[in-house]
Amino acid sequence: MLEAKTERIRKDIEAMAQFTASPGGGMTRFSFSEEDRKTREYITSQMETAGLTVRRDAAGSLFGRREGKRRGAPAVMLGSHFDSVKNGGAFDGPAGVVMGLEVARVLHENGIGTSLPLEFAALVEEEGGRFGGGLYGSRAMAGLLSRESLDIFRDRDGISMARAMKESGLDPDRIGEAVRPKGSLRAFIELHIEQGPVLESEGLDLGFVKTIVGITQREVEIIGRADHAGTTPMDMRCNALLAASEAALFLDRAAREAGEGTVGTIGRMEVYPGGSNIVPGKVFFTIDVRSADIEKLERVVDTFGSFMKNMEKKHGVTVSIRDKLTVPPVDMSQEILGLFEEEAGNLGYSAKVMQSGAGHDAMIMASITDVGLLFVPSRGGRSHCPEEWTDYEQIKKGVDVIIGTVLALAEASS
Amino acid sequence: MLEAKTERIRKDIEAMAQFTASPGGGMTRFSFSEEDRKTREYITSQMETAGLTVRRDAAGSLFGRREGKRRGAPAVMLGSHFDSVKNGGAFDGPAGVVMGLEVARVLHENGIGTSLPLEFAALVEEEGGRFGGGLYGSRAMAGLLSRESLDIFRDRDGISMARAMKESGLDPDRIGEAVRPKGSLRAFIELHIEQGPVLESEGLDLGFVKTIVGITQREVEIIGRADHAGTTPMDMRCNALLAASEAALFLDRAAREAGEGTVGTIGRMEVYPGGSNIVPGKVFFTIDVRSADIEKLERVVDTFGSFMKNMEKKHGVTVSIRDKLTVPPVDMSQEILGLFEEEAGNLGYSAKVMQSGAGHDAMIMASITDVGLLFVPSRGGRSHCPEEWTDYEQIKKGVDVIIGTVLALAEASS
Repeated sequence: MLEAKTERIRKDIEAMAQFTASPGGGMTRFSFSEEDRKTREYITSQMETAGLTVRRDAAGSLFGRREGKRRGAPAVMLGSHFDSVKNGGAFDGPAGVVMGLEVARVLHENGIGTSLPLEFAALVEEEGGRFGGGLYGSRAMAGLLSRESLDIFRDRDGISMARAMKESGLDPDRIGEAVRPKGSLRAFIELHIEQGPVLESEGLDLGFVKTIVGITQREVEIIGRADHAGTTPMDMRCNALLAASEAALFLDRAAREAGEGTVGTIGRMEVYPGGSNIVPGKVFFTIDVRSADIEKLERVVDTFGSFMKNMEKKHGVTVSIRDKLTVPPVDMSQEILGLFEEEAGNLGYSAKVMQSGAGHDAMIMASITDVGLLFVPSRGGRSHCPEEWTDYEQIKKGVDVIIGTVLALAEASS
Repeated sequence: MLEAKTERIRKDIEAMAQFTASPGGGMTRFSFSEEDRKTREYITSQMETAGLTVRRDAAGSLFGRREGKRRGAPAVMLGSHFDSVKNGGAFDGPAGVVMGLEVARVLHENGIGTSLPLEFAALVEEEGGRFGGGLYGSRAMAGLLSRESLDIFRDRDGISMARAMKESGLDPDRIGEAVRPKGSLRAFIELHIEQGPVLESEGLDLGFVKTIVGITQREVEIIGRADHAGTTPMDMRCNALLAASEAALFLDRAAREAGEGTVGTIGRMEVYPGGSNIVPGKVFFTIDVRSADIEKLERVVDTFGSFMKNMEKKHGVTVSIRDKLTVPPVDMSQEILGLFEEEAGNLGYSAKVMQSGAGHDAMIMASITDVGLLFVPSRGGRSHCPEEWTDYEQIKKGVDVIIGTVLALAEASS
């Protein structure tokens, strides 16, 4: 009897968690670092043990390939990324890479063949923790990464992505070779931690993502007038913080009213000049609105803009709103979602169809192939922190569902 | 014909404005600095020209004395401070010192004698710009300054007040000698810029302060939970910024409802962790409430506390409120206010009785003698900035009113 799947998953996660630049302070694994190199070695050895042929693509992502019976057929790709944010957790990314390793081991041990080839992916620089871009490995595959951008993205020490690639033995001029043309992939399947509290609070094992939400981010600046807080009567003030406070409450209300998972957040707010005895003359803040429904997204942002116009009159301030980021919602494959549900049903695992409020490589991959994204619960909803946690048993359940899904997509034959 | 009063006032203000540590960036005149020394020299020479006997008290404040006919009688003191905040203006403080110089010159030139002695004061460290304490010269006179505190207050370079005093030729161990016992002063009369917009907006020349408002400052910390702004549904959040936003709007409303010049301000607010995609888990802010009516002051602060209790339930946060500062309102002398009104009436100057929303040396002096505080208009209500401005003609009108007041209090005889 072979080692239990759960136990192997635990070993993989713990092994990869050793390679951190911040021991005792969570995971810090930046791309093309020494920790990155050691992690690649580990993943490579595990892939090879599972009978895979390992190669690094032009962007630096690792792929372990398992040929299918139909030569030249499109591949089913599965995996996630293995870089981390600064002082992050051991699961964001690695859980999906380990899913791939475990699927590969199970197929290998059981001598299960498929018509289509399989590729087990360990992608780089999804977080943008080092170079600030993010979703880099998947962008390279989708052809969304220009040669020029490799010179533009730089780390804190001013080292460009291109230079880091060279030092790692990659040729940035050949980044185009990482592109996977449409038709070359049958599907991309990612397992990721939820990074939110929904699955845990509902006591569910798994989440099947229907849509990755669209995101609109704006920067807002309110200019009022800084006055002495003691000597300026209430009716002679132009208090920027009052307008900002109304904005925070309005955005919250607007997102709730839009419903169906729409969220709206002011996460960053700076109040100037910031003296306890000075009426705030300027407030800067960001808004972040997300929805799986593009119309709801646009409506919340539009009504927010109108509301702020009214605030100008009400509080005697001027408001400027600057576009920062707009990403439309991305739908996952209905077919793969159906396979997830079927497998979970067969296995008796509890699950729900949900949206993803955060972006993932799956979002980019959806531009070139059918994509399935499976969530496992995050304890306390925590992520991007050392406390990030998912029970190994739940990752194992995700692996089980994905094995069945992959075999169906890749036309298994034993 | 002698030089016009207004012209002499202009010269004094402009002369003192030269002694700044931030040329081109407004007034920066910290206590016991080189700029402080040069300003003292200027004030001393002007006092001596006006026939005054100049001495420095144990705290470092300058006093030019003019004896009265009744030896040993209590003195009428008039003046203000001559230190500044960092990058402040040329009028906050100096306007009142110059008022004293001009009053002294007028009496000297016209050979006007008084029964009571007069003391023309130029006080130090009112702003606390260097050592952080503030109201230091008047506190020393009121006996509110301990020897120990001189070691505790330190500037940015770690230099204690005691050390700076020594370097300036003062003995901190003798600080007690600066005390003016009750009965030793007949009155203290201060002229100060309004630092608010009321006089200008009402088109008035002068303001006669009835009460210096009481002040309550609190520090408020709201602890919620930092969550991912994309993956955390609206109904599962504990958003500290929403509670803080409600607090800002409530405080504003409560102050307006209390009325009669009551003001309430959140001037400083910090939002943590401050990522655009993170629900605020913590907000720190200050509240500053001021009123001439102690009951209104207490009511606003109390209802704010109750309101924040409700916010705990509503937003799933915990709120802690820490006392920072509580100063009760201080009434100025009704007698002196009456003299101000009489003089202004005689001279045909427009004026109003008002409150002071900011603290001044007059507030401290009220603990040992009868006090009069006269405001001149601040253009645009601006203060503590290089743009700070009062028309010299308006300072001159203040001087005129104070001359008559001083002569009445000190029992003039020509």
